[in-house]
Amino acid sequence: MLEKTISSISDLDATSMREAQHRLDNLTKPKGSLGMLERIAVQLAGITGEPRPKIGKKVSIVMAADHGVVAEGVSAFPQEVTPQMVVNFLNGGAAINVLSRHAGAEVVCVDIGVAVDVDHPGLKARKVKYGTDNFVHGPAMTREEALKALEVGIDVVQEQINSGASIFALGEMGIGNTTASSAILAVYSEHSLEEIVGPGSGVGTERLAHKRMVIERAIEKNRPDKSDPIDVLAKVGGLEIAGMAGCILAAAANRVPVVIDGFISSAAALIASKISPRSVNYMIGSHLSQEPGHRIALDLIGLRPLFSLDMRLGEGTGAVLAFNIIEAATKIIGEMATFDEAGVSKA
Amino acid sequence: MLEKTISSISDLDATSMREAQHRLDNLTKPKGSLGMLERIAVQLAGITGEPRPKIGKKVSIVMAADHGVVAEGVSAFPQEVTPQMVVNFLNGGAAINVLSRHAGAEVVCVDIGVAVDVDHPGLKARKVKYGTDNFVHGPAMTREEALKALEVGIDVVQEQINSGASIFALGEMGIGNTTASSAILAVYSEHSLEEIVGPGSGVGTERLAHKRMVIERAIEKNRPDKSDPIDVLAKVGGLEIAGMAGCILAAAANRVPVVIDGFISSAAALIASKISPRSVNYMIGSHLSQEPGHRIALDLIGLRPLFSLDMRLGEGTGAVLAFNIIEAATKIIGEMATFDEAGVSKA
Repeated sequence: MLEKTISSISDLDATSMREAQHRLDNLTKPKGSLGMLERIAVQLAGITGEPRPKIGKKVSIVMAADHGVVAEGVSAFPQEVTPQMVVNFLNGGAAINVLSRHAGAEVVCVDIGVAVDVDHPGLKARKVKYGTDNFVHGPAMTREEALKALEVGIDVVQEQINSGASIFALGEMGIGNTTASSAILAVYSEHSLEEIVGPGSGVGTERLAHKRMVIERAIEKNRPDKSDPIDVLAKVGGLEIAGMAGCILAAAANRVPVVIDGFISSAAALIASKISPRSVNYMIGSHLSQEPGHRIALDLIGLRPLFSLDMRLGEGTGAVLAFNIIEAATKIIGEMATFDEAGVSKA
Repeated sequence: MLEKTISSISDLDATSMREAQHRLDNLTKPKGSLGMLERIAVQLAGITGEPRPKIGKKVSIVMAADHGVVAEGVSAFPQEVTPQMVVNFLNGGAAINVLSRHAGAEVVCVDIGVAVDVDHPGLKARKVKYGTDNFVHGPAMTREEALKALEVGIDVVQEQINSGASIFALGEMGIGNTTASSAILAVYSEHSLEEIVGPGSGVGTERLAHKRMVIERAIEKNRPDKSDPIDVLAKVGGLEIAGMAGCILAAAANRVPVVIDGFISSAAALIASKISPRSVNYMIGSHLSQEPGHRIALDLIGLRPLFSLDMRLGEGTGAVLAFNIIEAATKIIGEMATFDEAGVSKA
């Protein structure tokens, strides 16, 4: 399934992009004066093949999983918070629920690797494994498990597209997952661990130094092969990160835009970009997180954040806030009058 | 009316702000992890006196006026575009109309000084003067005209609040108005004209140098008194800029938040902040414009932009895009579950 998905990812539709750009240049405003709104409209034209693209059903996917590395004391919150927050998502009380309702988006919560059983009728139970293994002592998971998690992501997105999803926000929950994301980023980036590793949900200065040391040991122990992104995922990644990477690949294969959230979502996007460089064309950046590695990850992928609100929550909260801006872009190209229609003189 | 408005502007409600902060700190997320969304929620609590503030009716005000200084060839577009765009606003075809519909906001278009008569049933005809005088040769307007334009702004906002407006986006239309805004900023800022003056709606490099020279001559000729913001408005300002400053003061006096748009809107906010420093508490920044003076103006006022989308259109387009983020902030504080309610462990 993975190979077929990757081979289905094609280039953007250049004809629709040219038509969209031509229309934008004739709307009643100085050329280019709506900046990123115009660039998003053109990208969506290229993704969908529609010169006046529209957004229909919106879906926020939240992939939840646990991390064996929490045994090293790298997180401010205990591991039990992962299943507790999953229940909170399913009961509608978390930030991603509030912001998804605000955006008119549906929340789909997937257990792809929570360390305990979670029983709830609203949950997509697609557990690959009861949390990753502690990657300080060996790989986080086997290559087969990483591939299985990627395919869960592909499957979940395919199912949502079959029920009409037209855009995705990609979020996660997993105590310890900034540690895994930092490890992935450290494999690909020239930046030091001092620049990459941040406080996550809020560890203090001392534990931050410890977190860096844990990541350094994990990379030394596992020696992930950067030319093989699935090896990186398996050795120092996470199940929800693999799942999100699968979501991105499936969205791209179906010509559906996918909005990247914060640091963990961007680690997944980095992996997806290494598996299929073309998949980047289908990604839209959202916020710039306070987590220091986030800008580094976005730069490596080639994504630009739309807003910077000092957020660092994850769950997809930044991505779902971007839906409104992306829809605004489609309405600009869809509804504004041209100079001719409005009888306005050009420069 | 102006004096009464200024004296009605009071401090934010500290008790409501403390209550809002307390609630935010108990919601199911790491403390402070929603960044600016939390700070906006607290500010709105302070503005409205409600610990869980809500946004009701939203209004985009577009103040339109002309500028005598266009005779100096400082703009890429001809002056006839001002009334043409006013008609476009009234017919619903401009970017501000599209984005206001998207945000569920009403557009109120005010002719406060267009150089020709505009006849349209939807227009608020509050013309103070048929465009300003060319401020290269003398003041843009008399002190009395500046005061009258401020009072038009106060009046328009008061009328909208009487019909239920709960938040304003503040925009404008006026060929030549980045020149007036740059002149105002130059009076208050330590930065050079090279740093302040930008291309506006799109003048090239040569005309940009000319635009700077025109501003330099205007300031030399008029010698605006920076300790008297109404003198600055009258000598090198604009009618729509004065009107917007009046809007801000009236919103603040009524404890209603007002969202500042791009460079011209920020020049008005700078004047309002000089007339009443307390009025800044009622302002919310929106986007960071491509116009180079915008960041300088926001820094002087003490406002932080929420997003940076390379926009430079004006009309209030950035401000109205911010409505969605501001409403998101009210929903976070209004709808999220607390740790206790959701049974989630704290850090």
